[in-house]
Formats: sequence, structure tokens, C-alpha cells
Amino acid sequence: MIAHSFRGEVFGPAERLHGATYVVDVAFRRPDLDDDGVVVDIGRATEQLRAVLADLRYRNLDDEPAFVGKNTTTEFLARVIFDRLVRAIHDGSLGNGARGVTSVCVTLNESHVAWGSYEGPV
Amino acid sequence: MIAHSFRGEVFGPAERLHGATYVVDVAFRRPDLDDDGVVVDIGRATEQLRAVLADLRYRNLDDEPAFVGKNTTTEFLARVIFDRLVRAIHDGSLGNGARGVTSVCVTLNESHVAWGSYEGPV
Amino acid sequence: MIAHSFRGEVFGPAERLHGATYVVDVAFRRPDLDDDGVVVDIGRATEQLRAVLADLRYRNLDDEPAFVGKNTTTEFLARVIFDRLVRAIHDGSLGNGARGVTSVCVTLNESHVAWGSYEGPV
Amino acid sequence: MIAHSFRGEVFGPAERLHGATYVVDVAFRRPDLDDDGVVVDIGRATEQLRAVLADLRYRNLDDEPAFVGKNTTTEFLARVIFDRLVRAIHDGSLGNGARGVTSVCVTLNESHVAWGSYEGPV
Amino acid sequence: MIAHSFRGEVFGPAERLHGATYVVDVAFRRPDLDDDGVVVDIGRATEQLRAVLADLRYRNLDDEPAFVGKNTTTEFLARVIFDRLVRAIHDGSLGNGARGVTSVCVTLNESHVAWGSYEGPV
Amino acid sequence: MIAHSFRGEVFGPAERLHGATYVVDVAFRRPDLDDDGVVVDIGRATEQLRAVLADLRYRNLDDEPAFVGKNTTTEFLARVIFDRLVRAIHDGSLGNGARGVTSVCVTLNESHVAWGSYEGPV
Repeated sequence: MIAHSFRGEVFGPAERLHGATYVVDVAFRRPDLDDDGVVVDIGRATEQLRAVLADLRYRNLDDEPAFVGKNTTTEFLARVIFDRLVRAIHDGSLGNGARGVTSVCVTLNESHVAWGSYEGPV
Repeated sequence: MIAHSFRGEVFGPAERLHGATYVVDVAFRRPDLDDDGVVVDIGRATEQLRAVLADLRYRNLDDEPAFVGKNTTTEFLARVIFDRLVRAIHDGSLGNGARGVTSVCVTLNESHVAWGSYEGPV
Repeated sequence: MIAHSFRGEVFGPAERLHGATYVVDVAFRRPDLDDDGVVVDIGRATEQLRAVLADLRYRNLDDEPAFVGKNTTTEFLARVIFDRLVRAIHDGSLGNGARGVTSVCVTLNESHVAWGSYEGPV
Repeated sequence: MIAHSFRGEVFGPAERLHGATYVVDVAFRRPDLDDDGVVVDIGRATEQLRAVLADLRYRNLDDEPAFVGKNTTTEFLARVIFDRLVRAIHDGSLGNGARGVTSVCVTLNESHVAWGSYEGPV
Repeated sequence: MIAHSFRGEVFGPAERLHGATYVVDVAFRRPDLDDDGVVVDIGRATEQLRAVLADLRYRNLDDEPAFVGKNTTTEFLARVIFDRLVRAIHDGSLGNGARGVTSVCVTLNESHVAWGSYEGPV
Repeated sequence: MIAHSFRGEVFGPAERLHGATYVVDVAFRRPDLDDDGVVVDIGRATEQLRAVLADLRYRNLDDEPAFVGKNTTTEFLARVIFDRLVRAIHDGSLGNGARGVTSVCVTLNESHVAWGSYEGPV
């Protein structure tokens, strides 16, 4: 649940300060399951996603130093979350099993009809 | 897609300026159908709902004179929209057929798990 | 999945022959559960609903003798299905346990945003 | 995510030990909002619901002393959760504001097509 | 909301004139965002999709000259809509930014359980 | 609707016997439609999927000889169902038209927020 505004005439009324609720889904892919028979430890994955989102929740993104000069669009934010989760996989925060994950897809659902995703290799 | 902040310790981090997307559903009830076999002309109902929402979309509700001193919670906004739609029924904006509507329920879906409603007689 | 057309200027382009998919939900209510601990035998309820819908599926409703001179709107069809299910409760087709059901609500979902219901006592 | 079995010929293959995932929704109603402009403190409500569900999650309900001789159907479990939440309202676990809640509805979604509810006064 | 009939014994009762509601989703993909930080101008994309669908809505597809001798199945219609949207990208109707879109996926949801898609390069 | 338990400390409380409802979606892909204009005969596909699921429904998977020594996780079960459907395509159970299907994706939805898939070539 964030507030933000956009710059660019393409955005029309969204140039005003407004807000959005994003429901965030993450999909992890790998060719074979780990020794426990899972793609990823869903408990740890949820915990890491919560940690990544904690830095964004209930904020006015226009005031965040990390996003100065950027339009914090849905698709831009999907990439931000993707990058932070991939870093968590690499540094072992999702456990050793998660090192077998080969790609991640982050989807931000704005509503039941609009969404944006970023998908890429780990 | 609105921005707002809340006052009251119960709100925790939601005291900061943040935002929300609301998907708005409206249900109209009546004991018998009108002469065309419908509860309400869905074209006109959609048009009136859009008109009501146009005054709220892409705004920072903290700056709206109508809401000074109020927490613009989901349930509060459901009531605001309910009141404006009932007024539209009374003044004939939904057509003569809609005068047979006896109750209205407005639901604001914040996400796929959280929502607030206001339901009352017309 | 039915075809039909409507009469009445309120319908605009829907006066042309067109079609609709309805996903039909039925809710049964009663004050107390039956001896097996259920509201209704869901197997039998599904079977009876399928039987009721079998008379409507894959048809052009403009050609159905039962609907001559009627606009087969979503809300009209909800009532038709309600009446037929209530009859099935009364004649024992849903089993003896189902005789304790006190109200039924039939909802026809036209899409993920539009629906019509009929609710009434058994 | 529970395991259980049912007794009664109406259940057919569900007489075998099987399982179910329930997604639990709770709706709270009241005539007027509290001083903060909310129906209930959603943080506390979620916390209490989690506490109630913690006693049921990842269990074989056939082994729970509280349910001996009972068919732990969806509608039965909805009532169990309702009773425990109403008790939490009465003992103040949802805060003083929640004492204004007049009715509660607990819904257990078994899948995207099947659900059971219990609704009653507080 | 269209009416149509199918030829071929595989279709069974769907050989009769019947109908369907399709909820149409479109996904646009590209390797990098445009200068405004978006994949596509969602306002223009919605407008173009509406224009494409306007030629299909509230019609009996059996009477459309473009579809003579064809079974207008869900998957066939997904391709028709895909082709028309790709044409709109090429002729600039979605704006200059949209020329960076590399693939499009059109999904026709028939109900909450059945859907068909066409995905291909632009 | 199955019961099962998992082995491995990563599973925490899911090491106890518990259960799950899976809603199973299958997507079939092919470069071109068959002579009837469809990807696959949806009637036959549904029938074959039902047949595959019939061997799993209302069971305690810990007792199934085929799964001895395995954690029957969502992602493991997606693969099991995938393998059985691909076999059905090869042996002609989905009809001759289905031999043109080039890939299949099986998704097991555990709830509206958690799911697992297996996708591969036929």
C-alpha cells in the first residue's frame, strides 16, 4: 500500500499524488526438485519476500532516496523486488536448496484486472 | 487509486502517507424486476458509479475538503459512495426503473483478501 | 453457454442476438445442520443443479417455449433456476436432509465483474 | 490444511481419511463505525483468527479430543471458528472498539467453487 | 458476449447455436521499459483493445463475413484479436513507446475454469 | 482432497499428518490448431484429467505404494499428473487431434495464494 506520483504526460491524472495496493506473487522455477522434493522452502521464501516488501509498505515512494528521478511504475517495482530476491538467493537467505532455482518471476497485481511482471534468470 | 494517511495509534505504519487501489462493486436489490426484466439498467448504473468515483480517483484524500478531520478508511469510503449512489437513484439519474431499488450494498475490495462494505435501504 | 436477444431500448446493442456464459453458484441456508453435520448433500445438490442447467445449456433461449415474450436477463434466469431447485427440494430429489433448508440463493456470474442473484425462502 | 474422515453413507469416498485446505474469511458487521472510523482493528482481528486457526492447522482432526464423534465438515468447522472468535470479542481480545460488532460471518473456502459459512449475532 | 455455433462432431451440443461471454486479458512483453518506465501506455492499450472488441461484441459470429467456414472457437478468436492488436502496434496506434513491445499474449477467459490463449512475437 | 505427511525438518508442522485440497488446471500448447479449430477436445481432456485424479482423490497418500519414500509435495504431484496425461496423449486417449499438442503445463492450486506447476514437452 504505497503512495506515489508519475512524471510524463502519458500518465494524465496519475501525475497527481495517488496510491496503490499491490498484491505480490513470486514464482520460482528450476529443472529438478531439491532433496526435500520442493522448488523452494515456501516458509523462507515468504519470509524473504516480506522482508523485501517491508522496505516499501505504507510509504510515499516519491520520498524514497533509492527512487529519485524514477517513475515507480508497477513494472519498475516488479524489477526492484526481483533484484532484491535474486540477491537473497545468492547470499543464501533462502537456504542452500534455493541455489538450484534458475529463474524467478515477480508479479505485482494492482487490481483483479491489471498487473505487471518481471521475469529473468537468477 | 488514492493516497491518504490515518490518525490513531491503532493504525501503526498506516499513519504515514500511503495509498490504496480499491475495486468497487455495487449490488442493487429489489423484490421484483422492472418492466424490462432487470433490477437496474447496468449501463446507467456503471455510468453513475464512474461519475461518483471520478471525484475520488488519483487523489490524495488528505487534501479533500469533504474529508477534513476524518479517517478515510475503506469502510468510511464505502459509506460515502453509498450515499452518493442513493442520491443518484432519488434524483432519477439511474432512470425511472431504478426507483424500485430498495437496498444498495457498496463493497470496496482493497486486495483479494481485504474488503469493506456498506449496505442500507434506499 | 446460451444465446439470446433482448427487447427494450434500454438494452442497446444487446437487442441483437448475442450470447453469454453463466457460472452458476447456489447457496443453501438453514438454522441447524442435519444429522450428518451438513447443510445439504453436496453431491446430490450438484447433480440436481446440473439437471436444471441441462435444460438451458447450449441453447438459443429465444426459441424456448417457456420463455416466450420474456427478456431472459441474468436476474430473470436466476429466478427460473431458483424455482426449479426449490421444487427439487420439496419433491425430495435432494434427499430428506435437504428438507431442513430454509432459504436458497442462486447467483449467475456473467463475468468476473457482473452477476445477478435471486434469493428467497424455500 | 487438515486431514479428516467422515462417517455416514452420504459421504461416499470421503469416508476414507483424506484432507482439505481451507481459506478462511471473516466478516464483521456493526451499525456504526468506532471512533477510529473502522469496523474492527484489522491487525488484531487477523491475529486472533491466526490464533484460533493455529489449533487446527496441519492436524488430523480425527485425533482431536474436541471433535470426538463429530463429522468435522466445512460447515461444522465454520461454527467452531465463529464460536471462538465471538468469545475473543467478548473477552476483549479484539480491543474495546470491537465490542460494537453485532454480527460475524465465518466462511471456509474449500476451493474456488465450494465453501461453507456460519453467520450469527455476537 | 457473442453467439455462435460449431461444426464437427467433437463439439456435441455446441453444434447448436449458443453463446459465450469472454473476458479478454492482454499481456505485452519487452526486454526493457520505455522512457516513461512502462511496458506500454495502459490507457492506449485499453482503448485499442476496446476498439478491436467493438467489432465482435453482441454479435452472432455465424453471420460475420470474416469468419465464414470457420469454427469461431476460443483459441481461434484469441488469434484474431492478437493479429488485430499487433497491427495496431505496427501502425502506431499504441504510440511510439509501444514499438518496443516484442511479444503479445491474448487470453480469452470463458469462465473461471476455462480459457484459451494465443501468444506470439510482434 | 488428500491427506499426507512430509519428512524433512524444512516442513515444520507439516511433518504431522495433514491434508490439502488441490484445484488442478492443465494447459495444452501447440503451434497450430487442429482441423476442428481447437487445441484439444476439452471434453476428452477433462475426462482424462478426471481419470488421472480419480486415483488420488480422497486418499491418504502416505499409504499409496507408488509414493513410498517420497514427499508428495505440490510440485511432486504436479509432475505425477503431467506424466500420466502425457501418457494419455501418446496412447491416443485424448483423440488423434491431441497428437499435435507439443507441451503441457499442470498446475496444482493449493489455495488462492499458493500453487505449484510442472511444464514440459509432450
